[in-house]
Amino acid sequence: MSRPTMELWYEFASSYSYLTVMRVEPLAREAGVEVVWRPFLLGPVFLALGWNDSPFNIYPPKGRYMWRDLTRLAAKYGLPFRVPSQFPRNGLLAARVALRLAHTDTEGAFSRGVMHANFAEDRDISDPGVIADILHGLGLSPDPLLAEAVTPENKLALRRQTERAAELGLFGAPSFRVGEELFWGNDRLEDALEWAVRHV
Amino acid sequence: MSRPTMELWYEFASSYSYLTVMRVEPLAREAGVEVVWRPFLLGPVFLALGWNDSPFNIYPPKGRYMWRDLTRLAAKYGLPFRVPSQFPRNGLLAARVALRLAHTDTEGAFSRGVMHANFAEDRDISDPGVIADILHGLGLSPDPLLAEAVTPENKLALRRQTERAAELGLFGAPSFRVGEELFWGNDRLEDALEWAVRHV
Repeated sequence: MSRPTMELWYEFASSYSYLTVMRVEPLAREAGVEVVWRPFLLGPVFLALGWNDSPFNIYPPKGRYMWRDLTRLAAKYGLPFRVPSQFPRNGLLAARVALRLAHTDTEGAFSRGVMHANFAEDRDISDPGVIADILHGLGLSPDPLLAEAVTPENKLALRRQTERAAELGLFGAPSFRVGEELFWGNDRLEDALEWAVRHV
Repeated sequence: MSRPTMELWYEFASSYSYLTVMRVEPLAREAGVEVVWRPFLLGPVFLALGWNDSPFNIYPPKGRYMWRDLTRLAAKYGLPFRVPSQFPRNGLLAARVALRLAHTDTEGAFSRGVMHANFAEDRDISDPGVIADILHGLGLSPDPLLAEAVTPENKLALRRQTERAAELGLFGAPSFRVGEELFWGNDRLEDALEWAVRHV
């Protein structure tokens, strides 16, 4: 019998991805669902939709609302949150490192560390020193991982993962994929997990 | 002691407004919250954001996803749902009639009737005959209401309500306003009601 599985597509720059990345593991464990972590870049996906920036910056009323909504939701979930002084931050290096940690027992913890740095500590996650701090805190050697992150093979792997996101019809993050079924947004995390359990 | 109140801002053409309009009354009753119905037009609000059509039509991946999401959510809520053959339909006449029914005991039932026609029966809600059918079903005389709907005063009242929506920072529907607090989307209905109860 196969175990129910849910792909989590997330971007380190994405504010609603923060909420999901921090929440997903206990909820998935409780539901008995395996999470497949799929870091990708929203930039190219947004460009294909005609946006050269976050829609939260392009449409100011949406942006103002989003920060208020995030503040309320973080309080509801008991998560620390500070409106970052820069948005969106460049999540490229973090995504490349996350890809190197795929299928290891630290990929979730690394992702939470990056999200916490960006959305709770207001640190610049595009700075290799910040990423090194996070890796260090997980008991990992930063230097080899930072070197592996920028090899041509790994750069290509992230580009392919991002192209795959667009092929799958993703247009935002976080998104969840269960079989052929797509769910969009932190608000759908519970529904996606339930779908995985019911349609295994 | 004042009773908790929640403004429901909705548009008859809006797919997610359908879910909320059908769900709101039992949930509000249970929470002890009074609903103030605020029909408005999304068209002018979208135009101010640079959209001359529904974003679900402008951005095809968002549109494809939305219909699938609506189908799943309607099933979850036990609501009938059929993807309308035309989207968005023109909700102008329905909104003008709804405004005439404000603060009467039929405004909720009329709004549900229009939503059901659009999203469960695939009927053209811009057709005065369809609106007349709905009014008739509620025991109301269609002709005087349809005449009152298009007086200059009532047209102006709807225009003012739509301008007010933009002033309040609304950028989509359904939206909920509780005091100064804004909530956007059918997904926030429960949170908005809870906010109304806690912050009365």
